[in-house]
Amino acid sequence: MMLKIGVIGAGAIGKEHIRRCSTVLQGASIVAVSDINAEGARSAVTALGLEAKIYDDGHALIADPEVQAVLVTSWDPTHEEFTLAAIAAGKPVFCEKPLAMSAEGCRRIVDAEMRAGRRLVQVGFMRPYDDGYQALKQAIAQGEVGTPLMLHCAHRNASVNESYSTDMAITNTLIHELDVLRWLLNDDYVSAQVIFPRSTRNAHANLRDPQIVLLETRSGVRIDVEVFVNCQYGYDIQCEVVGESGIARLPEPASVQMRKQARLATEILTDWKDRFIRAYDVELQAFIDDVKADELRGPSAWDGYAASVAADACLKAQQSGSVEPVEMAPRPDFYPR
Amino acid sequence: MMLKIGVIGAGAIGKEHIRRCSTVLQGASIVAVSDINAEGARSAVTALGLEAKIYDDGHALIADPEVQAVLVTSWDPTHEEFTLAAIAAGKPVFCEKPLAMSAEGCRRIVDAEMRAGRRLVQVGFMRPYDDGYQALKQAIAQGEVGTPLMLHCAHRNASVNESYSTDMAITNTLIHELDVLRWLLNDDYVSAQVIFPRSTRNAHANLRDPQIVLLETRSGVRIDVEVFVNCQYGYDIQCEVVGESGIARLPEPASVQMRKQARLATEILTDWKDRFIRAYDVELQAFIDDVKADELRGPSAWDGYAASVAADACLKAQQSGSVEPVEMAPRPDFYPR
Amino acid sequence: MMLKIGVIGAGAIGKEHIRRCSTVLQGASIVAVSDINAEGARSAVTALGLEAKIYDDGHALIADPEVQAVLVTSWDPTHEEFTLAAIAAGKPVFCEKPLAMSAEGCRRIVDAEMRAGRRLVQVGFMRPYDDGYQALKQAIAQGEVGTPLMLHCAHRNASVNESYSTDMAITNTLIHELDVLRWLLNDDYVSAQVIFPRSTRNAHANLRDPQIVLLETRSGVRIDVEVFVNCQYGYDIQCEVVGESGIARLPEPASVQMRKQARLATEILTDWKDRFIRAYDVELQAFIDDVKADELRGPSAWDGYAASVAADACLKAQQSGSVEPVEMAPRPDFYPR
Amino acid sequence: MMLKIGVIGAGAIGKEHIRRCSTVLQGASIVAVSDINAEGARSAVTALGLEAKIYDDGHALIADPEVQAVLVTSWDPTHEEFTLAAIAAGKPVFCEKPLAMSAEGCRRIVDAEMRAGRRLVQVGFMRPYDDGYQALKQAIAQGEVGTPLMLHCAHRNASVNESYSTDMAITNTLIHELDVLRWLLNDDYVSAQVIFPRSTRNAHANLRDPQIVLLETRSGVRIDVEVFVNCQYGYDIQCEVVGESGIARLPEPASVQMRKQARLATEILTDWKDRFIRAYDVELQAFIDDVKADELRGPSAWDGYAASVAADACLKAQQSGSVEPVEMAPRPDFYPR
Repeated sequence: MMLKIGVIGAGAIGKEHIRRCSTVLQGASIVAVSDINAEGARSAVTALGLEAKIYDDGHALIADPEVQAVLVTSWDPTHEEFTLAAIAAGKPVFCEKPLAMSAEGCRRIVDAEMRAGRRLVQVGFMRPYDDGYQALKQAIAQGEVGTPLMLHCAHRNASVNESYSTDMAITNTLIHELDVLRWLLNDDYVSAQVIFPRSTRNAHANLRDPQIVLLETRSGVRIDVEVFVNCQYGYDIQCEVVGESGIARLPEPASVQMRKQARLATEILTDWKDRFIRAYDVELQAFIDDVKADELRGPSAWDGYAASVAADACLKAQQSGSVEPVEMAPRPDFYPR
Repeated sequence: MMLKIGVIGAGAIGKEHIRRCSTVLQGASIVAVSDINAEGARSAVTALGLEAKIYDDGHALIADPEVQAVLVTSWDPTHEEFTLAAIAAGKPVFCEKPLAMSAEGCRRIVDAEMRAGRRLVQVGFMRPYDDGYQALKQAIAQGEVGTPLMLHCAHRNASVNESYSTDMAITNTLIHELDVLRWLLNDDYVSAQVIFPRSTRNAHANLRDPQIVLLETRSGVRIDVEVFVNCQYGYDIQCEVVGESGIARLPEPASVQMRKQARLATEILTDWKDRFIRAYDVELQAFIDDVKADELRGPSAWDGYAASVAADACLKAQQSGSVEPVEMAPRPDFYPR
Repeated sequence: MMLKIGVIGAGAIGKEHIRRCSTVLQGASIVAVSDINAEGARSAVTALGLEAKIYDDGHALIADPEVQAVLVTSWDPTHEEFTLAAIAAGKPVFCEKPLAMSAEGCRRIVDAEMRAGRRLVQVGFMRPYDDGYQALKQAIAQGEVGTPLMLHCAHRNASVNESYSTDMAITNTLIHELDVLRWLLNDDYVSAQVIFPRSTRNAHANLRDPQIVLLETRSGVRIDVEVFVNCQYGYDIQCEVVGESGIARLPEPASVQMRKQARLATEILTDWKDRFIRAYDVELQAFIDDVKADELRGPSAWDGYAASVAADACLKAQQSGSVEPVEMAPRPDFYPR
Repeated sequence: MMLKIGVIGAGAIGKEHIRRCSTVLQGASIVAVSDINAEGARSAVTALGLEAKIYDDGHALIADPEVQAVLVTSWDPTHEEFTLAAIAAGKPVFCEKPLAMSAEGCRRIVDAEMRAGRRLVQVGFMRPYDDGYQALKQAIAQGEVGTPLMLHCAHRNASVNESYSTDMAITNTLIHELDVLRWLLNDDYVSAQVIFPRSTRNAHANLRDPQIVLLETRSGVRIDVEVFVNCQYGYDIQCEVVGESGIARLPEPASVQMRKQARLATEILTDWKDRFIRAYDVELQAFIDDVKADELRGPSAWDGYAASVAADACLKAQQSGSVEPVEMAPRPDFYPR
């Protein structure tokens, strides 16, 4: 009972997912791979000794009757199109973030899925599958710290390259917090504000780095997220939930403790791929298992839409310097909490 | 060569300082104590087996030729008057915070001291004398984390009583951060904003708790301070300095590490008096030593003024919900950095 | 290319491995299960909806031509017999610890495997597959702490039941350290000593608990292992490597950090199954992958023999109170370091 | 009411105590200093601007009627003689460790003090005055971890010079543990064993380093102390108390936590003088206060004797490789627990 998967897009992340399905995860096999560069698709397949059909057109792959489920890992601007096509074909689809290039695009996917009458879409937000965030959510749910009042968060990268622009602090970096914090609190954002501290000299000339994003939720929780993508010292994700009776903090990754050269130290990761490496496995295994059980439960098209709306407000707040509302459509019953 | 000290005000903190000078510190003796209730002054003196003159008038104490230096620990509204009187008498004076009831009052003391032509005033801000803050400042000064860009701080009390009002989060609680963070960064504030998260149900009805205060400094450092005075779990002071190349964090107080009942734990203090108990000793010893060396170096009247101006802006920001400027007079050369 | 596995013994651990191979791991399928109680085998299989042949005799299962590799999870005293039979049949075999009931039994397996001319046996020591021990070994290998001189270790269980006897502190508990520490240091033991501290009142009457085992290795490293199986507070595995230039310590399991009720705390596990849950997956996946690559690299029959010889010396030392030699045959070239 | 103190021996530690009494502590003044090199005594006094009589003979200083209490900080072999002389003169005496060069010498002081009929001697063991050990003892006393069963300790120095010999690991280094662990447990040693791991190449040729000392107490507590005086990485004192229901560990010294260069680190001290700097102040202040209250309560001559007897057994165990008994005279009622 292997789930037969077709992968659209054989770039870096596409190859990773092909490898993952073939050599790490349980219960799925890659039966087709497409890429606008068919040779790229072919080499991805042969490199792993797989047998899979090669397409140069994602729509043809979706139409292949052998393909039972679709992974969309193509160029960002094509995500919406292929996701909509998969929905139209009635095939479950795992779409890497971003779900679409705009909130409106996400909304079109939401609407299409609702018309289809059942959940067919999982967005590639992996943090809810991270052991640490899971433990943090459980601690909140069990009332370990009482009702949450504030979140103090940080998203730090050692450095970014010249192509990284000020708005990408929202769309590429903060987007993960925008998703996972909604999930953590089971709440929605109502406003956003962005503050620019003195910029580090380690950022390139056109980038304002760090930034502090302030979010407010429907229930009044206040969130501050420091986004600092040239922090030099490592890749470091922090999340602290201040509740009415205590504080819970995202676990630091386990590490050998060293006493050495007058320091008592543990290691901080430097490569983001190491930080959530297990979560990537778990999210995709969950997609496979949930498709087989015919009940998708991971990050939904609605979650993709919600993150997109919040990101838009943050982008506006970057420009205006003011508090900007996050104006989201009411949650359809189709997407229960 | 004992420094002969007169103490104005024999309440709780006055008694503490009398005890401190008599049984802990080096090189000073209490020769006079005044209180509007002379009996209170007398019992404070006899309880410790001291010999000291008793006054019911602080001005008479200041005038006593035997008194070489003055501690002002009287009712807050009298601080300005006695400090000005000590300056007029040319006697060094250690004045508990607040230096005066308004920024204007602080300014009058600044002006009087400048007219006197030498530093005579130390304000009772003790945090710069705390080992932890000292170590943090040293780490910054040595460039351990590069140029500071952001500070993330928290000031949490387990609980407060009914008399604690929303403005006291600024004037009684945040005031310590307003002083110590200026000293830590060697910088001045230019704006303040206050955010009110959802309030804890553990605060009494009229108190908005917690609050988040956002400060901006002249050099562009952005500071967030969570003030949460009914956090339930303990008295907890946090300060994290995010610099261009790393992050330095105020030490947690040393504590026995326990493995017990499925928890690996250290203790968090619950009484604020324990947290800075050594700093109180050190600040007063520094006053004694500096007076003898004829060179006051601790928190100055100018520092008292600066904290007061910043507090006023925060109070205004509590009301307005907006970003409020911190408008301070230019620093006179009399008070070098 | 699924590896077809037969499982001998459908008790608790047998069921676990069947579940693991069927729903977690990659590239294997369970094709046969045997148990002296055939009904037990059958229910294990049907509970997971598997299709597998049922045997009431392990030898018949081994002889089944469809079975490509064997898992021995039967009653301890039968391990040697089935492992020898698998070797005789030329089929790779993963045998749960203990490999045999005596060092002599282990030696018989070693000899049989050497006669077979290739590695066919992996013993179920999972700690070398734990992320933490892997990181610790890597730190040593990279010279992070210089040449190891001492190891300070602890193996603590919250409590054990009445059937746990003083010798089981060696054969059931310490046996894991006896394996993993040899692997960590790439060294062999030469002597053992056991010290009995004052016993806890939380142990039953006939159990001496805790115990301290002192080991010496060929290169002169000294190891102390505290075995304390009624420590009350949790399941806690500690390992500290003191080298010539620093100290490396096994990571604490990642855990949410809580500030609550005057404590700054992380959780300590209480169930041993949670501590090495991932390592169980990884060791069996490694067996599957290594069998397919025709190159077993995990804990060998020789490792099983070495642990057994060391355990015997510890048992003797429990009785004698003296330092007892660990007398092991020379390592055959067949088993390279 | 200043206590008038005479100091015998103006070497490094003598000068430190003179400075301490004059500029840090409360309620004492140095009125006389002796040294066999009177010029050394004189320069120690004038360097601090003190007025004190200078002697070249400790006995003359003891005889000076102005001297109310004596500090013995002279050459180790003279400690016994001067301490006995102070007892004979009925003057309280604080004697730096070692109290005498042998257990017999300590015993002579014990006998002399008992004949004098009141406690006159405090030995310079400062660890019981350390905040960390105080907190650890309190945790034990409050039953936080249940009855102690084992202690795991370490005493590590970054390095020692050529003059440090293998026996000094006991007499200069372990001696602090021998005192403080008796005090911590309120118990006595009954046996000692010494194990020599592989020696570090960072020790000079004639020094065996590290060493592991195993101690057994009357109540059956087992103690292991790693003594490692060329550990390279810092000065590090560890003490872990394993009790029936939990484990308590000596606090790490408070330190700024840094995130920097892929490490999350706190500092480890490198100079032993920094580690117990406060404890030196506190022990001597306690002596001053206790002398004034006419009730010495610090480490007694009996404690000095007990540490000396235990050290002798450890030295014997270094030679014999065997478990050696610690044979102490019964505790006289004169020295209550």
